[in-house]
Amino acid sequence: MEVVLDADVIERRESEEREYDVIIVGAGPAGLTAAIYSARYGLSTAFFETVDPASQLSLTPVIENFPGFEGSGFELLEKMKNQALKFGAEHKFENVEKLRKVNGKFEVVTESGTYYARALIIATGGKHRELGVPGEKEFVGRGVSYCATCDGHFFRGKKVLVVGGGNTAVTDAIYLKEIGCDVTLIHRRDELRAEKALQEELFSRNIPVIWNSVVLRIEGEEKVERVVILNRVTNEESVLEVDGVFIAVGIRPATDIVMDLGVERDSAGYIRVDKKQRTNVEGVFAAGDCCDNPLKQVVTACGDGAVAANSAFEYVKMMKS
Amino acid sequence: MEVVLDADVIERRESEEREYDVIIVGAGPAGLTAAIYSARYGLSTAFFETVDPASQLSLTPVIENFPGFEGSGFELLEKMKNQALKFGAEHKFENVEKLRKVNGKFEVVTESGTYYARALIIATGGKHRELGVPGEKEFVGRGVSYCATCDGHFFRGKKVLVVGGGNTAVTDAIYLKEIGCDVTLIHRRDELRAEKALQEELFSRNIPVIWNSVVLRIEGEEKVERVVILNRVTNEESVLEVDGVFIAVGIRPATDIVMDLGVERDSAGYIRVDKKQRTNVEGVFAAGDCCDNPLKQVVTACGDGAVAANSAFEYVKMMKS
Repeated sequence: MEVVLDADVIERRESEEREYDVIIVGAGPAGLTAAIYSARYGLSTAFFETVDPASQLSLTPVIENFPGFEGSGFELLEKMKNQALKFGAEHKFENVEKLRKVNGKFEVVTESGTYYARALIIATGGKHRELGVPGEKEFVGRGVSYCATCDGHFFRGKKVLVVGGGNTAVTDAIYLKEIGCDVTLIHRRDELRAEKALQEELFSRNIPVIWNSVVLRIEGEEKVERVVILNRVTNEESVLEVDGVFIAVGIRPATDIVMDLGVERDSAGYIRVDKKQRTNVEGVFAAGDCCDNPLKQVVTACGDGAVAANSAFEYVKMMKS
Repeated sequence: MEVVLDADVIERRESEEREYDVIIVGAGPAGLTAAIYSARYGLSTAFFETVDPASQLSLTPVIENFPGFEGSGFELLEKMKNQALKFGAEHKFENVEKLRKVNGKFEVVTESGTYYARALIIATGGKHRELGVPGEKEFVGRGVSYCATCDGHFFRGKKVLVVGGGNTAVTDAIYLKEIGCDVTLIHRRDELRAEKALQEELFSRNIPVIWNSVVLRIEGEEKVERVVILNRVTNEESVLEVDGVFIAVGIRPATDIVMDLGVERDSAGYIRVDKKQRTNVEGVFAAGDCCDNPLKQVVTACGDGAVAANSAFEYVKMMKS
């Protein structure tokens, strides 16, 4: 006898295939650790890797302060991803476009379909901040970059300016110098925010720093040729000839996706969470750089991810019983 | 001219050698991550490894749920320790016996001397409570475990006994059942202490409970083969054949050391911390299993350690300025 499935049955089966206990939005260190834990708790788990923004960690040339690991950010992410897959979490390479709560379940709409989950873990991280100066947008990909690891090699033997004073800016400056760029750092204040260890490394490499100064505009014909700089103390303008400008002035949390869910965010856009990584919306948890945790580091993102998965586990268990 | 140093000068110099920005008490994952971060922030840092309790992590044969790492707990700790040393933290292998605040500085008295610090990070961890029965110590790592999440995978398809009646014991029993173990729970009373929701889940999974009973001894040749049980009501002894015994009769945080500092602890002895890992005493921070964080895992301890170091950094910077 031939078995003929009618459309209803097929649809139901397909929708069941798209149902999970936990869906994790994001595949950086927070999302992947949440996936490892969620899968190990026995919850059916899917994590969605978005293309924009890609995890900041994947762009980091060298990680020195993650306990138990040395290597590139990309390598660390690959290891985490393999662990999550090994324990049964499913990897979806789809941009998540919409999150809604419908009848106590969460609907996750991506570019290619709709999924359902009992609990959500938001681990969308952040996206680089822009300077907001003339020339910046125009020259992206033609001298302006937000990723030293990605684009640094195009500037070997050339003059580059790194903008910023935090860990990322200093790490980028050191990296670019290492691979053979002629690097200058520019920072708006008279001291760097970066860790002392990184600062020492910067200075030991004789990387010049332009203090108390900001980029006013980025100029050139086809591609970047120079930047105009303002010294905030003397109020003097000057011109610096460069081939590349690497902008590392911080991160903007990628949290617009939670707006429809009614998830509370602080004034800077970070998702408010309690110690258990719970948001104000039942069943929605958040972890890593997208939430208002006190420190934005790979290891703290991972810790958040584990706690979020644990809280999601407790929540899903309660729902099922 | 011969330079003769008088006793005063020598004493002062020696005491200077014993002064640090940050002293970390404990060398488990929380303490070592705090050391990595503190040293990288440019703070003079020492971490004290105590012998009893040794880090729980060092006892764990295989770590599967630490992101980016696979191997034994001991290996993971060694990696972290090497990172901390590489960045300039000093390792002291001395039991800390007393902590006091004197004139705004902290005095750290060990078995072999006195040290001083501007800030303290308490990362003394916890110790799993033991049953204290024959066979328990002998079979640790060969059938006896204090960590279902760590070791459960080794017992898929095998018979295991979980000892205890609290949240941890019931969670462990459910977890072990979920991953495919043949689980029995044993509890000394006629009802469980665990949350109702957890109990319901336990029963809905048909996990048998041996009530009013205690483990008298654990037996076997090379590894655990059986336990001898006493029913406290009928006073009858019986034998249960098992491959694994998971002991979950509670954790005892190792926090007596902070008593003289006036650091607040909860009723179970955990140090109360805020999101920045600050205790109620200025300049004293806590991280990992010794504090009242919501989840006791290696990765969360590491996250805590990084946050504690960051808070200590802010505190020391403020003191110096």
